Amino acid sequence: MRNQQAEHTPVTVIGLGLMGQALAGAFLGAGHPTTVWNRTAAKAEPLVARGAKSAGSVAEAVAASPLVVVCVSDYDAVHALLDPLDGTALQGRTLVNLTSGTSAQARERAAWADGRGADYLDGAILAGPAAIGTADAVVLLSGPRSAFDPHASALGGLGAGTTYLGADHGLASLYDAAGLVMMWSILNGFLQGAALLGTAGVDATTFAPFITQGIGTVADWLPGYARQIDDGAYPADDAAIDTHLATMEHLIHESEFLGVNAELPRFIKALADRAVADGHGGSGYPALIEQFRTHSGK
Amino acid sequence: MRNQQAEHTPVTVIGLGLMGQALAGAFLGAGHPTTVWNRTAAKAEPLVARGAKSAGSVAEAVAASPLVVVCVSDYDAVHALLDPLDGTALQGRTLVNLTSGTSAQARERAAWADGRGADYLDGAILAGPAAIGTADAVVLLSGPRSAFDPHASALGGLGAGTTYLGADHGLASLYDAAGLVMMWSILNGFLQGAALLGTAGVDATTFAPFITQGIGTVADWLPGYARQIDDGAYPADDAAIDTHLATMEHLIHESEFLGVNAELPRFIKALADRAVADGHGGSGYPALIEQFRTHSGK
Repeated sequence: MRNQQAEHTPVTVIGLGLMGQALAGAFLGAGHPTTVWNRTAAKAEPLVARGAKSAGSVAEAVAASPLVVVCVSDYDAVHALLDPLDGTALQGRTLVNLTSGTSAQARERAAWADGRGADYLDGAILAGPAAIGTADAVVLLSGPRSAFDPHASALGGLGAGTTYLGADHGLASLYDAAGLVMMWSILNGFLQGAALLGTAGVDATTFAPFITQGIGTVADWLPGYARQIDDGAYPADDAAIDTHLATMEHLIHESEFLGVNAELPRFIKALADRAVADGHGGSGYPALIEQFRTHSGK
Repeated sequence: MRNQQAEHTPVTVIGLGLMGQALAGAFLGAGHPTTVWNRTAAKAEPLVARGAKSAGSVAEAVAASPLVVVCVSDYDAVHALLDPLDGTALQGRTLVNLTSGTSAQARERAAWADGRGADYLDGAILAGPAAIGTADAVVLLSGPRSAFDPHASALGGLGAGTTYLGADHGLASLYDAAGLVMMWSILNGFLQGAALLGTAGVDATTFAPFITQGIGTVADWLPGYARQIDDGAYPADDAAIDTHLATMEHLIHESEFLGVNAELPRFIKALADRAVADGHGGSGYPALIEQFRTHSGK
């Protein structure tokens, strides 16, 4: 009964960029009465043709549903749309903000929503619009569990990877940022390797399966390294940072000699050099966490 | 018959650091008559106790076996040990150099060996000493196939991941460098994420399984990105570099605001900025290969 009801919770989607359209489409597809609003009303038309109701104003859109999802370009747009609302417009409703931003912006918006009597969840979408509603979409949500649980079914329909992270509204942004920095790190590592091997005429497609296997190997070390980080003790079970440094030198020489960009190798070594200067030459790699925790650099 | 013979090829191991000891131990364990040499002879004792023969000089060590494996600290040590040998000492033998170095050093040593009538393979070991001889050890080898094939069985005994890469002697070093830069990239990405989440009280052990899943997702994109690199065309099938840039800004702000090191985020953005300046704002991420191929930076 509960699930049945939850599946049919009326939902409002504010913001119909490519992602907002995909979100509204997923709610419609799952059978939710869906109201949409967009600054340019024409974007609502394909959704209206599929059964959505187009609201004439943000206030009307918010009034239409107990679950209100906002997905616009940035927090400035969120402010511009929501701040002018009447102080009671959101009372008793659940506001889910899937707009990309920082943890500070999420926490500020949570305090704002609290002042208006609304439940608030902040979210981040780790998927392209085409993946919404499929097994490949990960939607991260953070805020009070009491705000998430009643809408777990509706929000779960946005992607099989929908995950509730915890009460701190900043968590979705932080996990998102952590995922993105890993993504760019892997892509840059791949490009550096492809550039190095390209000098010997090795295709990137030949290199890809080799490095994919290596990525899996390194990923398997992370739980053990994580324990060292949490324990604050970094025994060099495999290789000490001093040993890494010697190999980092090779990588710089290799890149420079072959005329390939050596900035990433130099960046990697500069961090390790600093850890050694801090007395961690004999420690394992996870000791570098202390460099990442510190605000340093120009 | 062929395999039987290959399994028992006499092998010499020069250099008995932790890795050299592990290599000699694996050859002994596989039943190869094994001769060892080390500058400090005492290091040979445990191997002699297991049946190895200790040579009195490098010349005697080389003379003992058709397959000669060298694994010392660096190429300076390789030169110091091998350069004084009589010009015919290596004639008809196969020299396998597993010392870490650059592709240029490997190619130089190959020319040197060629001048002495020796077959030469250059190699890189992607494993710690404890993994040698097991399923976890990857030994990369490059040089003429005619040098590898007769010793495929003996060398394959060093690890299940023993791989012949091709005729270019520089390939083992280049693949090694590419694997290392990926390793450090992933580890640094993990540490940046752990530092960000640590500000919200999230343990690294809580973060690890989340990011491991993310790593797998990104690794799955690499074959497609590799095809774009090889084709020299970078359609933005997922997100254009301009879109990445906006999110990179968030990551910098997030890191700065939380007092976490923002150097890696800034480094990531600086590369993307340059790709945009080169006209690739509307391209997909693999267009950044052009930044990595170019020798730039300070």
